[in-house]
Amino acid sequence: MIENLKNLLGAENVLSKQEAAPYFKDWRGRYAGNALAVVFPANTEQVSAVVQLCAAHQISIVPQGGNTSLCGGAVPLADGSSQLVINLSRLNKIRQIDATNYTMTVEAGCKLFDVRSAAEKNNRLFPLGLTATQKICEIGGNLSTNAGGINVLRYGNARDLVLGLEVVLPDGRIWNGLRSLRKDNSGYDLKHLFVGAEGTLGIITTAVLKLFPLPQTIVTACVAVHNPAAAVALLSHLRTTCGDRISGFEIVSRSCLDLVFKHTPDMHEPFANKHDWIVITQLADVLLTPLENALQDAIRSFGDGIVDFKIDTDAERANHWWKLRENIAEAQKAEGTSIKHDISVPVSRVAEFIERASSELNRTFAGIRIVAFGHMGDGNIHYNASHLDRAQNDSFIKANELKINRIVYQVVAELNGSISAEHGLGQLKREEITHYKSEIELDLMRSIKRVLDPKGLMNPGKVL
Amino acid sequence: MIENLKNLLGAENVLSKQEAAPYFKDWRGRYAGNALAVVFPANTEQVSAVVQLCAAHQISIVPQGGNTSLCGGAVPLADGSSQLVINLSRLNKIRQIDATNYTMTVEAGCKLFDVRSAAEKNNRLFPLGLTATQKICEIGGNLSTNAGGINVLRYGNARDLVLGLEVVLPDGRIWNGLRSLRKDNSGYDLKHLFVGAEGTLGIITTAVLKLFPLPQTIVTACVAVHNPAAAVALLSHLRTTCGDRISGFEIVSRSCLDLVFKHTPDMHEPFANKHDWIVITQLADVLLTPLENALQDAIRSFGDGIVDFKIDTDAERANHWWKLRENIAEAQKAEGTSIKHDISVPVSRVAEFIERASSELNRTFAGIRIVAFGHMGDGNIHYNASHLDRAQNDSFIKANELKINRIVYQVVAELNGSISAEHGLGQLKREEITHYKSEIELDLMRSIKRVLDPKGLMNPGKVL
Repeated sequence: MIENLKNLLGAENVLSKQEAAPYFKDWRGRYAGNALAVVFPANTEQVSAVVQLCAAHQISIVPQGGNTSLCGGAVPLADGSSQLVINLSRLNKIRQIDATNYTMTVEAGCKLFDVRSAAEKNNRLFPLGLTATQKICEIGGNLSTNAGGINVLRYGNARDLVLGLEVVLPDGRIWNGLRSLRKDNSGYDLKHLFVGAEGTLGIITTAVLKLFPLPQTIVTACVAVHNPAAAVALLSHLRTTCGDRISGFEIVSRSCLDLVFKHTPDMHEPFANKHDWIVITQLADVLLTPLENALQDAIRSFGDGIVDFKIDTDAERANHWWKLRENIAEAQKAEGTSIKHDISVPVSRVAEFIERASSELNRTFAGIRIVAFGHMGDGNIHYNASHLDRAQNDSFIKANELKINRIVYQVVAELNGSISAEHGLGQLKREEITHYKSEIELDLMRSIKRVLDPKGLMNPGKVL
Repeated sequence: MIENLKNLLGAENVLSKQEAAPYFKDWRGRYAGNALAVVFPANTEQVSAVVQLCAAHQISIVPQGGNTSLCGGAVPLADGSSQLVINLSRLNKIRQIDATNYTMTVEAGCKLFDVRSAAEKNNRLFPLGLTATQKICEIGGNLSTNAGGINVLRYGNARDLVLGLEVVLPDGRIWNGLRSLRKDNSGYDLKHLFVGAEGTLGIITTAVLKLFPLPQTIVTACVAVHNPAAAVALLSHLRTTCGDRISGFEIVSRSCLDLVFKHTPDMHEPFANKHDWIVITQLADVLLTPLENALQDAIRSFGDGIVDFKIDTDAERANHWWKLRENIAEAQKAEGTSIKHDISVPVSRVAEFIERASSELNRTFAGIRIVAFGHMGDGNIHYNASHLDRAQNDSFIKANELKINRIVYQVVAELNGSISAEHGLGQLKREEITHYKSEIELDLMRSIKRVLDPKGLMNPGKVL
C-alpha cells in the first residue's frame, strides 16, 4: 500500500511512522490515533486515485485539513492498521475570483485567512469569522464541519456561504458540482449533504464561495447588561431598529472577564465598575454613514436592563473589547482543563438556558466554576465547567463529567436546542448524540451513509 | 381504498371522479392527470395514516398544496388507477410566532400571503416574494419546490428561509425536525434533502421559518440602461456601494414593455423616450434614513451605460414600475402560448447569455419574438420565445420547441448555468435535465431516492 501511494504521489508526499505522528493527534492533545500513513495529494485527481486505491484494499480514509477540529473529527482512530489520513493542504489554489458574481472558487486546502485576504483584495468580504484559528484552519474543513464563528448572525454558517462543491466520493468518483449560481432548482441539493458531514460521505476538494460587499463603516458597542435576559431583549430590539447590519452580538460573563484579566497582559475592565454580564456588538455598513448615531439611539431607546454602555468607531479601541472575548479560551486553558459544551437554543431562550443550567449545576456541585460566553446572536453559548480550585480540578472533572454533561444537555433538550451548535460531533459526541436525536433521524442518517459509502470507509468512528 | 380513506378522514375529505377533477389538472392547463381520489387530511397524523395506507397498497402519492407548479409538479400522471393526491390545504395553522427568535412555525397548507401577513403583524418580515401567486400558493409547496421570486438577491431562496421541518416519510413515519436553531451541527442536514425535492422524498407538513426585521424605509429606482451588460455592471456597483439593503434588481426588455402596454390598462412608459432595457431596483432599510441619496449617489457615480433614471420613495408611484414587471406574464399569455425558459447563469454572465441566445435564435428563426425579463440580481432570467405573428404562433411552437430549447439550454450549459433556476423540474423538465446533469449526479440522486423511497411511491414521474 505504502509503495503504491508513493508511486502515485511521489515518496515525499507519503509520510509514515515518526514523520506522520503530528498528523495523527489533534491540536488540543485530546485524541491520539494511528494510521498507515498520511498522504498529501496535489490535486483532485490524485485524491480520487488515492481513494480508489483505499476502496480496492478496504482501507479507511480520514480526510484532514488544518486539523483544528475541537471534536477529534480529523484524526484517525487508535487502531491504525487499516486507516489512511488524506491531508488536503496541498490543494491550496484560489482558482478564480469573480467580483461581479460575488463568488470565488477555492481548493479545499486554502487557509481561511488566505481566502478572506484574497476576497478583500478584490473589495469583497468572505464573512466566515473564526479569529482564533483562521491562519491554520482550511476551507475544506470549514465546510465539512459547517463552521460557525462570530458573524453567523448576519451571514449564516459555512453552509450558507457555499454555492457549489467538487467532492471525491467514497468510491473515488469525482462529483463536479462547482456551480456558481444563486438559483438552481434542478434536482436534489447534494452540496448540503456533504457540508457538515465531517468527511463521512466524501472528500470536499473544491468549493465555490459566496462573497459580500466589503463594509466601509464599522461601529462597535460594549454594553453592560443586568443579566442574559436583558441581552436577549436587547438583541431583538437592535435587530428591529438597526436591521441586518448587526454583524456580531457576543455575550461574556464575569467569570470569563476575571480569567482574561488574570491570564492576559494589557487587558482592562471596559467600564469603571465591574459588571456581571457584558455584550459586545458590532454594526457594519458599506455606506459611509453615521452608524454610531443609529446604534446610540437604539441602545438609548431600549429602556431598563442596560447598566452602562460605550460606543466606539475607532477600530483599535474597539479591538480591545473583542480581545476580551477572543482571549477567553486561552485564559481558561491556563487554569487547567474544563468540560466544554457548545450548545444552541432558540435565541429567545438563551437566558432561560443559562439560568436553568447554572442554578442546577451550582446546586449540585460545590466549588464549580461556570464559564459562559459566546455567540448569543445565534443562540450559541459556549458553556464550560471546571473547579474553582485548580488542585481539585482534574479529579472533579473525572468524577463528574458525565453527570455535568447530562444536566446541561437535559436543559438543552427541554429547550429544543442542540448539543453541538458549531463544532460538530466528531469522536467527541458521537455516542452522546444518540440520546438526543430521534431513532427516525438516526435511521435516516445511517441510510444515507450506507448508500453513499456502502463499504463504510469514510472517516470511521466520527458522527455516526 | 376509497372506503378506508373515508373512514380515516371523513367522507367529505375524500373527493373522487368529477368532484376531484379540478385537483388533477394544473392551473395553466398544460397537464391533466387522473387519480383514485384527492384527500384532505387535517393534520400530520392523518397525513401519516394516509401514507401508511398507500404504502400498504402500493398506491403512489402526489403531494399537493396550492397547485401553482409551473412544471406539472403537483398533479397526477395520466394513468390514475394507482395514484392518490394528498392535498395539504387543511393543514393551515400558524402554530407559533417567536418574534424574539425571529422565527415562526407554520403548517404546510398556510398560504404564503397569510404567512407574510402574520409576520408583519408581529413587526417582522417573511421575505419570500411571489407576487403573482402568493394568495394561492402554500408554504409547503414553496419549500418543496425551493421557490425563488423577487427578493432572493437579499434573502435567499425558500431553502435559505427555513430552519426546521416536519416531514411524513414515504413509509408513513413522521420525522420531527422542527428546530428553530440558527446553529445545529449535530449530523447530516436532512431538511435540505426535502426542500426542493418536489415531494419525491416525503411530504413536508410543518416548517420553522426565519423572519427578518421589517423595513421602514423603501426607495425604488427605474433605470434605463444601454444593454444587459450595463445592467450587470450596475448591479455589481450598487452592491458595492449600497450593500445588502438591495432587495430586488429586475430587468425588463423592450418586448416585455410593449406587451404590457398593449394588454394591461393604465400602464405607461416610465420615461419620456422609449428605451430598450430598463431595470427596476429597490433598497430597503429598517432605519429611517435618506436612502434616496445613497441610491442617487450610487447611480450617478456609475458612469456610462445608464440612459436615464428616476428614483421614488412614494410607494404608490414606485408600484407602477413594479406593475410593469408583474404584468409581463399575463400580457404575454394574451398573445398566445410561448416556450418558457427559467434559466440561471452566474450573475456576471447574464448579458453574455442574453446576447448569445438571442443572436442565435434571431439568426435561426425568422419572426421569432423573444421576451426576456426577470431576476437579474440572482442571474435568473425568464427567457421566453414565441412568434410575432399570432396566427403562426401555434404551428411555430409545435415545429420548433425542441430546437429552441436545445439552443437556449446549450448556451446555458456553456455558461455553467441551470435550465431550471426557480420553477423546478416537475414533469416538464424531467427528461431534459438528463442531458445537462452528469451521470454521477443523476446516480447520486437516484441512490438517495431509492434509499428514502424504496417502493418509488412519492410523486412518481417528477424530477427523476
